[in-house]
Amino acid sequence: MSNERLIYLPLGGAGEIGMNAYVYGYGRPGKERLIVVDMGVAFPDMDGSPGVDLILPDIAWLAERRHQIEAVFITHAHEDHVGAVAHTYEALQAPVYARAFTSNIARRKMQEHGYPENAIRTVGAWPEVTTAGPFKVGFLPMSHSIPESSSLIIDSPEGRVIHTGDFKLDETPLVGEPFDPDLWAEVSRDGVKALICDSTNVFSPDPGRSEASVGPEITKLVKSAKGMVVATTFASNVARVKTLAEAGEAAGRSIVLMGRAMKRMVEAAVETGVLTGFPPVVSPEAAQDIQRENLMLLVTGSQGERRAASAQLARGKYQGMQLKEGDLFLFSSKTIPGNEKGVIRIINQFSELGVDVVDDSTGRYHVSGHANRPDLERLTAIVKPQVVIPMHGEHRHLREHVKLADANGMTGVLAVNGMMIDLSGNQPKVAEYVETGRTYLDGTVQIGALDGVVRDRIRMALNGHVLVTLIMDDEDQPLGEPWCEVMGLAETGRSRAPLVDVLEEDLSQWVNRAGRKIWRDDEKLNEGLRRAVRQTAQDEIGKKPEVTVVVSRLS
Amino acid sequence: MSNERLIYLPLGGAGEIGMNAYVYGYGRPGKERLIVVDMGVAFPDMDGSPGVDLILPDIAWLAERRHQIEAVFITHAHEDHVGAVAHTYEALQAPVYARAFTSNIARRKMQEHGYPENAIRTVGAWPEVTTAGPFKVGFLPMSHSIPESSSLIIDSPEGRVIHTGDFKLDETPLVGEPFDPDLWAEVSRDGVKALICDSTNVFSPDPGRSEASVGPEITKLVKSAKGMVVATTFASNVARVKTLAEAGEAAGRSIVLMGRAMKRMVEAAVETGVLTGFPPVVSPEAAQDIQRENLMLLVTGSQGERRAASAQLARGKYQGMQLKEGDLFLFSSKTIPGNEKGVIRIINQFSELGVDVVDDSTGRYHVSGHANRPDLERLTAIVKPQVVIPMHGEHRHLREHVKLADANGMTGVLAVNGMMIDLSGNQPKVAEYVETGRTYLDGTVQIGALDGVVRDRIRMALNGHVLVTLIMDDEDQPLGEPWCEVMGLAETGRSRAPLVDVLEEDLSQWVNRAGRKIWRDDEKLNEGLRRAVRQTAQDEIGKKPEVTVVVSRLS
Repeated sequence: MSNERLIYLPLGGAGEIGMNAYVYGYGRPGKERLIVVDMGVAFPDMDGSPGVDLILPDIAWLAERRHQIEAVFITHAHEDHVGAVAHTYEALQAPVYARAFTSNIARRKMQEHGYPENAIRTVGAWPEVTTAGPFKVGFLPMSHSIPESSSLIIDSPEGRVIHTGDFKLDETPLVGEPFDPDLWAEVSRDGVKALICDSTNVFSPDPGRSEASVGPEITKLVKSAKGMVVATTFASNVARVKTLAEAGEAAGRSIVLMGRAMKRMVEAAVETGVLTGFPPVVSPEAAQDIQRENLMLLVTGSQGERRAASAQLARGKYQGMQLKEGDLFLFSSKTIPGNEKGVIRIINQFSELGVDVVDDSTGRYHVSGHANRPDLERLTAIVKPQVVIPMHGEHRHLREHVKLADANGMTGVLAVNGMMIDLSGNQPKVAEYVETGRTYLDGTVQIGALDGVVRDRIRMALNGHVLVTLIMDDEDQPLGEPWCEVMGLAETGRSRAPLVDVLEEDLSQWVNRAGRKIWRDDEKLNEGLRRAVRQTAQDEIGKKPEVTVVVSRLS
Repeated sequence: MSNERLIYLPLGGAGEIGMNAYVYGYGRPGKERLIVVDMGVAFPDMDGSPGVDLILPDIAWLAERRHQIEAVFITHAHEDHVGAVAHTYEALQAPVYARAFTSNIARRKMQEHGYPENAIRTVGAWPEVTTAGPFKVGFLPMSHSIPESSSLIIDSPEGRVIHTGDFKLDETPLVGEPFDPDLWAEVSRDGVKALICDSTNVFSPDPGRSEASVGPEITKLVKSAKGMVVATTFASNVARVKTLAEAGEAAGRSIVLMGRAMKRMVEAAVETGVLTGFPPVVSPEAAQDIQRENLMLLVTGSQGERRAASAQLARGKYQGMQLKEGDLFLFSSKTIPGNEKGVIRIINQFSELGVDVVDDSTGRYHVSGHANRPDLERLTAIVKPQVVIPMHGEHRHLREHVKLADANGMTGVLAVNGMMIDLSGNQPKVAEYVETGRTYLDGTVQIGALDGVVRDRIRMALNGHVLVTLIMDDEDQPLGEPWCEVMGLAETGRSRAPLVDVLEEDLSQWVNRAGRKIWRDDEKLNEGLRRAVRQTAQDEIGKKPEVTVVVSRLS
């Protein structure tokens, strides 16, 4: 046995928030049998990934070892944990295990891609375990902001590891199982080799608040409202959606669900039995006949997403509904860093309509789904692991979490994406550095983040794009003048003549001066025309555009 | 006199934060003599204005009336109040008045554009007044987060209006004049027609804290630090820069200023006498010989700007200085919405270097420069204006500020950019709607925000760009095949053949099928080729790119 080892390798989520993908392995070095925990996505933005549809972890390392993979386990149904499961299914070709609610969501994704239903295997909660090669894996119920979130108990010949997944310590989560400290003490009793632990809220100094604490405040707010009430939250936070609906019901309002994700999540939660007693809902059509003061809409778009229901309502009519002076819009959510501008945009649009907007700046209408600093300490004190390995967090979170573990007399290990940790023996050590990164889903194609495709897009967006065409006759002489097309540049500059005319004039002069030797040389012609465009544009408009040159030879 | 009127017209800053530009006028309708208050910029971003250098208010309305303009008054030297003064100088051709520090900054901008020194006229504080046509304008000292910020007392035959500029109520601002409630009571005693009032912090419920409150906390932090200390703040917050420097000095550290803006602002403050007693500084070169635990760097880049000193230090060496494990980086600043990702990026980079980062999440190391809700109420209670017109704020701020005024028994008027308010008589009323908007400084050229230039850039960034060239011979027959160049698109798609090859094949087939009638018709050829590209790209890679077609005819 001494030749075998237990490894942990984050491929996504360690050094960033989003795109979770972790690997555990057991066996002889290079021959380990592998399991994968979570397969999530991250979301693109205009700054770094314009035009991209989704960001996936680069799983090249896993794909090369697909025959070593026993299974994929999904802790919960948030997109940053399950979102890539269908996109990577062909490359990994491994069975995917999850609990019922998560399975329901994952299965919908598989169906969209035309994969078979049974690609996803539904398993029960701990003490049920799934054998996957040398591993036995159990789903230990854990509270978070989505139903049936679970920590994974991962047993191997080297001992027990617990992978928390995302979590908070909520003993009254309203929907789904509460955090059960006794159960956690029990599973930890015989010793836990490593706690691989959510880190995102390590900088939040106060104990986290329960999901149950927001209901009374929301109910009070909805009861005091005079016009229509519209509330948004993360659709996957089924407990919150229920709390909002119940607040509406208590105020005598009919509930309308708007936005695809909102309907899908409630449907999945009802189908799988995790959600019961949800107030009756009416359709947007039926809502037309109800007085606005008797309506409460629950809508998607808590992050200001342009195509979600909230943004569409902010711009005007959506599914026949329209907000006006005296209505109330509630963000029962926090704004994820990077989304501030989108959220502020719709708040201002509502302001223009005379709609009162209430957000979570008071802390009354939202609680986080992640464990705060004292919660991390509490869980660690229960589990008493040999080592704490922070995961799911930016570098600053992981580093702070390691410091916290160390301060509490534990051993913290900072492992970022690509760092393979050997957990065998008494002291964890870095076994290897694996190349990791991001893959972009762009339209229907997966491209590498470093392929240069997106870099070219960013360059065109920053600098504009000039196209030059030149025809050379069969004696390698210019036939006519060079021709320019311009996209994304000012029409006129310093000389006040059209930029295209100035460019064509300068290019024409350059071509005439260039002479026969350059005329024969595609590369030199290209480079010369490119330089001439950039020089003239710099003089005229103070910018050096991207340039594409097409030289057509009739010979 | 009854034919004459007093008007207020915001052209920028009312309905947004940034880009302040306000107009006051007095005279017969359409013949008013005008003064302009502030001429600021806003900053572009990748989402909405990629490649743009600066955003200026659209001053077409003013430029058309340049002969009616008496003067421009600048309240203070923040970029969103003074940044456009040189860019609009030629169009307005009006004298610019400001106090010494603001003048110093404005004059540097003028010099960069080659305008004469005397374009900017330095004036003293109230009770000194400048006569500008029917107006008399005085600069009433007011505390803010930059030296010599002033409110404007604007007297006209219709009475007194006070334009607050940006302000906070700080009786111990450390640099510059404190807020003087007695002086404010005195200037308000004979009645104030309208208070045009900063709104940005109307949602902040607690009274603002004084600049003097951060010094002790910063000093404590710096004294406790072991390695090098680096602090960033807004360079224009000269009081803060001084506080930071004094904290360094008290801890026995030599002070180094890094970043152009940091040096420029301190220089301007010393030149104009508003800053005295600044601790001695050493150059980055001299700092090489000083132990790191005896150094404190004050650097630009509190908003995570990629080219500022902080970001460069986060990426590695800057001017010979390099941070390492055990050093401390302090953000003595808040992150402006939209800049979160950039700030978080450098925090994580510092984390990777082992540098401890302290930000303002505790509220100990930064105070805002704007009046909070109770401060707005306090000032309004002193001035007792007939009407309150909120300015400098997004729509939500202006609307809330109007509500606040109304709740306090005042008349609040919501006036957004382009809304001309007639302040004559007893009841303010909307006189006219003026077209306003944004002008982009792009390279060296000013372009309209709606010209389509930036729209094209965004489209290329989202969709990629395909160029098609086709040569038609002198009998209107295709000469050779269509040629494609692709930028910002995946190299291969569904068929696994190079995208360019698939496109060229499909285009070639389309051209052959098109026939003589279409071959003769440039427009139809163009449109057909464009459609074929988009169709094929959609099939291959699931995206419809931007397409530019160049058909060259040899005839």
